[in-house]
Amino acid sequence: MEPTGAGRRGRRPGDSGTRAAILDAARARFAGEGFRGATVRAIAGDAGVDPALVMHYFGTKQALFVAAMEFPLDPAQVVPHLVGPGIDGLGERLVRFLIGVIDELGEANPMLGLVRSAVSHPDAARMMREFLGEAILDRVAAAIEADRPRLRADLCASQIVGILVARQILALPELAAADRELLIGVYGATIQRYLTAPLGPS
Amino acid sequence: MEPTGAGRRGRRPGDSGTRAAILDAARARFAGEGFRGATVRAIAGDAGVDPALVMHYFGTKQALFVAAMEFPLDPAQVVPHLVGPGIDGLGERLVRFLIGVIDELGEANPMLGLVRSAVSHPDAARMMREFLGEAILDRVAAAIEADRPRLRADLCASQIVGILVARQILALPELAAADRELLIGVYGATIQRYLTAPLGPS
Repeated sequence: MEPTGAGRRGRRPGDSGTRAAILDAARARFAGEGFRGATVRAIAGDAGVDPALVMHYFGTKQALFVAAMEFPLDPAQVVPHLVGPGIDGLGERLVRFLIGVIDELGEANPMLGLVRSAVSHPDAARMMREFLGEAILDRVAAAIEADRPRLRADLCASQIVGILVARQILALPELAAADRELLIGVYGATIQRYLTAPLGPS
Repeated sequence: MEPTGAGRRGRRPGDSGTRAAILDAARARFAGEGFRGATVRAIAGDAGVDPALVMHYFGTKQALFVAAMEFPLDPAQVVPHLVGPGIDGLGERLVRFLIGVIDELGEANPMLGLVRSAVSHPDAARMMREFLGEAILDRVAAAIEADRPRLRADLCASQIVGILVARQILALPELAAADRELLIGVYGATIQRYLTAPLGPS
């Protein structure tokens, strides 16, 4: 998730140069101040444009973040798609989607860069915590009917990030080699339990 | 975790100097060649001592690794203690122990350094995969009566590393604030399921 500067390539004078300047400013502000602390106003100021132009290009601060981090997927699209059909089977849908991303994107998986940065740098951990919270976990929590919905979303996140680290980064041998449908069944049941089962000391 | 190269200074002012030279050589070899690839013979050679002396000081390659990484706990002691009473309740015992380590050691938790290195450096990921495998996961697998014991141990590891990352490193707010006994109940049931429940697509 290092700024790649790719926006600087092939920049035409005009629109794309302005867009690239906004993205560069956004990366610097998000890294330094977190997702919540970085304001569209400050990013616009750094890029030398009006805040309204930033919103014109990107629509929302979340979408600006997604563009700045070069995510291939926008949680604002993906999460409602997964959550929309309701709580039944949501565990399996989430895990199927995420294991698909892990297995198909490999090193191009943008979650990898986020996890690497977050684990090494407290500022990046804050940025990830705040973006994950607003873009994904609060949206999942809104679909949960049981008590303590955001804790339940956090529990799901703890298993999902663990799958990423253990299957892809550590590549624990039997987990890395395991059949995808088996893992979707096992982990889907865990996530479904976190979404719906009674919480509390057993 | 960085090789210090101090072992090459050829110092031998008695026992503690020799011990330090062995530990320096071990850190460099483990980092460069992984836990499995680094031999006691090569480490002894780097430290300028006989392999028998390394075994005299440390007993096993695992114990040498534990000493080199300055772990406050030796899995060769801890894992049999947790696994010994049998598979019943093992999920809760594992989670109670690990959440205790996370919450009580804080930044002094040696797992943090290992995860940080492993996530950033492929060599460190291999070192952690190999050491975790031999020192912890193979031992847990040996206590599992169900099919595919090592896959089950890897599944447990994926939730445990996820707890570490989500509760301590990302500090997802509701998870970080959650009551420890609640988490031990919820996660203990997950781990117990990974240890004992039928595997396969749901």
